[in-house]
Amino acid sequence: MFVLLSVFMTLPVIFLAGSIAPNASAFAESASIVCGLGIFGIVATYRQPRDLKPRYMFVLTVSSWFILTLCSALPFYLSGNDISAPDAFFEATSGITTTGATVLSGLDTMDRDLLLWRSILQWIGGIGIIGMFVAVLPFLRVGGMRLFATESSEWTDKALPRMKTLSRGLLVVYIIFSIVAVLTYWVSGMTLFDAFNHGLTSIATGGFSTSDMSMGKFSDLILMEATLFMILGSLPFFLFVREMHGQHGVLFRDQQVRFLLTLLLLIPAVLTLYRWAVSPVPFDPLHNYASTLFNVTSVVTTTGYASEDYSAWGPLAFVLFFFLMFIGGCSGSTSGGMKVFRFQLSIIILREQLMRLLHPRAVLTRNYNGRAVSDEIISSMIAYSFIFLLSLLVITVALAAMQLDFITSLSGALSSLTNVGPGLGDIIGPSGNFGPLPDGAKWLLSVGMLMGRLEILSVIIVLSPAFWRS
Amino acid sequence: MFVLLSVFMTLPVIFLAGSIAPNASAFAESASIVCGLGIFGIVATYRQPRDLKPRYMFVLTVSSWFILTLCSALPFYLSGNDISAPDAFFEATSGITTTGATVLSGLDTMDRDLLLWRSILQWIGGIGIIGMFVAVLPFLRVGGMRLFATESSEWTDKALPRMKTLSRGLLVVYIIFSIVAVLTYWVSGMTLFDAFNHGLTSIATGGFSTSDMSMGKFSDLILMEATLFMILGSLPFFLFVREMHGQHGVLFRDQQVRFLLTLLLLIPAVLTLYRWAVSPVPFDPLHNYASTLFNVTSVVTTTGYASEDYSAWGPLAFVLFFFLMFIGGCSGSTSGGMKVFRFQLSIIILREQLMRLLHPRAVLTRNYNGRAVSDEIISSMIAYSFIFLLSLLVITVALAAMQLDFITSLSGALSSLTNVGPGLGDIIGPSGNFGPLPDGAKWLLSVGMLMGRLEILSVIIVLSPAFWRS
Repeated sequence: MFVLLSVFMTLPVIFLAGSIAPNASAFAESASIVCGLGIFGIVATYRQPRDLKPRYMFVLTVSSWFILTLCSALPFYLSGNDISAPDAFFEATSGITTTGATVLSGLDTMDRDLLLWRSILQWIGGIGIIGMFVAVLPFLRVGGMRLFATESSEWTDKALPRMKTLSRGLLVVYIIFSIVAVLTYWVSGMTLFDAFNHGLTSIATGGFSTSDMSMGKFSDLILMEATLFMILGSLPFFLFVREMHGQHGVLFRDQQVRFLLTLLLLIPAVLTLYRWAVSPVPFDPLHNYASTLFNVTSVVTTTGYASEDYSAWGPLAFVLFFFLMFIGGCSGSTSGGMKVFRFQLSIIILREQLMRLLHPRAVLTRNYNGRAVSDEIISSMIAYSFIFLLSLLVITVALAAMQLDFITSLSGALSSLTNVGPGLGDIIGPSGNFGPLPDGAKWLLSVGMLMGRLEILSVIIVLSPAFWRS
Repeated sequence: MFVLLSVFMTLPVIFLAGSIAPNASAFAESASIVCGLGIFGIVATYRQPRDLKPRYMFVLTVSSWFILTLCSALPFYLSGNDISAPDAFFEATSGITTTGATVLSGLDTMDRDLLLWRSILQWIGGIGIIGMFVAVLPFLRVGGMRLFATESSEWTDKALPRMKTLSRGLLVVYIIFSIVAVLTYWVSGMTLFDAFNHGLTSIATGGFSTSDMSMGKFSDLILMEATLFMILGSLPFFLFVREMHGQHGVLFRDQQVRFLLTLLLLIPAVLTLYRWAVSPVPFDPLHNYASTLFNVTSVVTTTGYASEDYSAWGPLAFVLFFFLMFIGGCSGSTSGGMKVFRFQLSIIILREQLMRLLHPRAVLTRNYNGRAVSDEIISSMIAYSFIFLLSLLVITVALAAMQLDFITSLSGALSSLTNVGPGLGDIIGPSGNFGPLPDGAKWLLSVGMLMGRLEILSVIIVLSPAFWRS
């Protein structure tokens, strides 16, 4: 992974071969360091036993994300742009976790190699989380993810070839989507540079842009295209692979997908009507629907683009955007958040309880996507939700202890744990950025982003004393 | 219950026999109406079968709270004080649910019979919820309440005498605590009138006061006494009865009690240190600790008194008070909120999950207060938590749609569902009141208070189509 990362680090400079790459030496240095680390690792562990117990998997998963993030911060830190250590780490974390929160401003005139690196980081992070969902999470039984376990997630010798086919399929779909996104943006009027960056960060539901205005300077057409690509990025990629392998219709029969699409159909429509009702000036319904749809999709898919300051659309919009930040996309996508399936499981439990209150002796079975839902999955889902809310509480309280106001603390903590990107309020809202926050807050939010990306429980368990004791 | 309520309605006038009761005729009218309704009900249902299926219990519980609240609003509405229908209903709901939010201002010069009626309402509501916890909720299996089911909550003929002893014990404890509170306040310097009102509303963890400054005009000594009485009101009353019957030590061995007391030991201490650290002026640690302890206790026990505007203590205090509003007291007390035991069950599940991630084949048992916790109780607890958060979302969104700002909408919705009383922010914060809100918001928040008091699920089920279909 280190060697691979070092190869990716040379890309920004290579892509800019025709023009100037102001930080070429920073990238070269970083790539050498990371590549060196990788080669050292390979030599040191050469011919070691490869028995992967769950325990090692936890350590490996968590530590590799943390260390790769540290490495990814090197180009920012070593560049000539005077980016401090916490800023560099924050930016790299926000990249690799596909969050999209930024501490940098003046993006429109920023060194292009750094902008490229940000986008490439998000693209790597996107495929990284898809791979982890398939290969690691169901195996680790974290947060109800066992619900998505298939025969291929058993890690037996028999399943290995199937796993390889799946992985190759996921990579192919991801690359095709990215190329289509880049080309579409390009022919719709973006410069090739903008198209390339936004193409990568759309499919990764990352949200880094090349402008301080985020996507505010682009046409409605481009916003609609971006909406489409963000939605693609927030759907379960393994279903695309199954569609590709001839299982037609699995995508739209999936309950996660249906729920998410229904939400994205309803909320923007309601919100546009509300904006119409409270608008003090003449209202262009079509343009405003496009903008509402784009920004709602950006938050629900945890991308984090903005085309305007949606927090100024009135109290209802503000409150809706706050709650939308929790949801997130589908499991198996590049999206963050609490994930659609956990809300659906909660609804199932709620309905079951209401039935039980009415018919105490009824025998009830739970089904989700045609599979029985065991009590173990439910417990694991509660554990996730509880630790999510607990982490939200702890990070919010810690931010407030650094004298950040209520809305900044709460929405900042939420936005980092759900990998959305922007928060709400004057400082970190869609028209602001994370630059003015104190360094402590930047470190803390970086940890929050990584925790959110790793489904929190996997981080907590590695940090628990019981883990190291036995 | 109607006849009983009409008797209570005469009390404010009787208590003021020595002086003037400006709204004597309003109380007389209200009492006559309610008493008439009661007698009509008795006559109409005389010699009807008394077979109480769960279904009837739900309808009876929910409808009686709603209708008794409507009746309790009559004295406010009929008084000469120009109180509108939504205001009267809001105030009555806030009373009977022991919430303590008020739409009235100018309390210091308000008609004394109305002030007495507010306090009496909270006192009735307090004993009402304690009775409901013992007699109705475990039987209805709502929200994990089955955890507190005893042999006496089975409603068999055998259990009836035991139930009667328990009920009598609860009433005796409640009355003794109330008398002690009134006398203590009186000897500590309150007028008899203030002592009587605050005595009733402290034990009921209600929070109505006789001044716009809430308890801000009283001495630190009185604040400490109030802290003690609020804590008493937030502990499980059936444990007091058991202590009284010779089972010494059950109170402090109870896990709910220990958790709540630990919280009230830790949070105010930390918060006082924080206030000390950020204080721009010389800081009196003792006085400020007293004030912090009092206000934190008031929010955690969902009483809702305030001695000063704690929302101005800095961002950390603001955020902490927000999160503290969720917790609530113990089950079986007069407190609202999500209740301590639900957080403890979540912690148990979380710990269990972490163990299971480390030792996938381990056999684990769950215990709470020495009792096994079944999967059914867990499901029922999730259903409650989910519907709580869903109700919070719906009410917040509805308030925001009435153009109330984020903090007012969110904290107002939360404060009503948890029966705390004041919200946060400039309008409904500890130094404001609910008077300026639009009528729609007042109706909505009233419904929220009743839902919160009835553990939400019991209201939802009565409103569900499936309930009436079968």
